[in-house]
Amino acid sequence: MMDKIEHIGIAVKDLQTSNLLFEKLLGVPSYKTEEVASEGVRTSFFKTGPNKIELLQATTENSAIAKFIAKKGEGIHHIAFAVADLPTELNRLKDQGFVVLPGFPKNGADNKRVAFLHPKGTNGVLVELCQEISNT
Amino acid sequence: MMDKIEHIGIAVKDLQTSNLLFEKLLGVPSYKTEEVASEGVRTSFFKTGPNKIELLQATTENSAIAKFIAKKGEGIHHIAFAVADLPTELNRLKDQGFVVLPGFPKNGADNKRVAFLHPKGTNGVLVELCQEISNT
Repeated sequence: MMDKIEHIGIAVKDLQTSNLLFEKLLGVPSYKTEEVASEGVRTSFFKTGPNKIELLQATTENSAIAKFIAKKGEGIHHIAFAVADLPTELNRLKDQGFVVLPGFPKNGADNKRVAFLHPKGTNGVLVELCQEISNT
Repeated sequence: MMDKIEHIGIAVKDLQTSNLLFEKLLGVPSYKTEEVASEGVRTSFFKTGPNKIELLQATTENSAIAKFIAKKGEGIHHIAFAVADLPTELNRLKDQGFVVLPGFPKNGADNKRVAFLHPKGTNGVLVELCQEISNT
C-alpha cells in the first residue's frame, strides 16, 4: 500500500543552477541540501504541499545519476512512494513478481530507509519505496 | 504556487497490460479510464493518497505519447502540479522566463484545464500545470 508520492527525483548536471531554476518554477526555495556519499550524489529538496521534489547531481563518475545523464540527459529519474512498513511492502511486491535492486533496502537521503524496484518490471519507471526512519 | 503533485503521467504501450501491472504495484485498481481524442491518448488513473498516477497509451501515430515511446521507450512522461488559478500561475511563470507550449491552456483529461511548459526550460522535465474545472 503506497501512502502517497513522497517525492520525484530529477537528475541535473549542476545543482546550484537547477536550484535557482526550480525556485522560480515552484515559487519556493530549496529547504535542504544533503550529500549522500554512498550513492555519489548531492541532493536538494523542495516542498510542494504533501510532496517533494528532489534534485540530484552526481559527485562521482560512477554514480547512477552520472550514468543516467550520460545516457538520457537531464530529467525525471525516479518516483518515490511513501510506505508505512517497508519490509512488509517489499514482501508484498516480491510476491507479485517485482524485483528489488541489489543492495536495498538501505538508508538514503532525508532520513529515509529506501529500496528501488527494477525498472524492467515496472514499464521502464524507476520506482523507489521509502519509509521515514523513526528517531525513537 | 504549486499546491501539490496532482499526478505523474507514464507512457505505456498497452493500457490493459499496464493497468494490471500498476494494480499489482500500487495495491489498488484503476478507478477511471478516459479517452482524450484531441490528444490521441487513452488514459487510466490510480489514486495514491493525495496524488494520482496517470497511464497514457497512444491511440494515433501522431500522438505525443506515440512519439515519446518511439524515442525513449515506456516510462515517466510528465509531472503535473495542481494550481488554484491557472492563468495567474502561467503569467507568473512567463514572467520568470518559462515557455508555455503552443495551444495551451486547454481542457484535458480528468475535468482539468491544463497547460504544459517547454521542457528545454525545465531541465528536460515536461511540466504540466492543471486546475480543476469548476462545475458551477
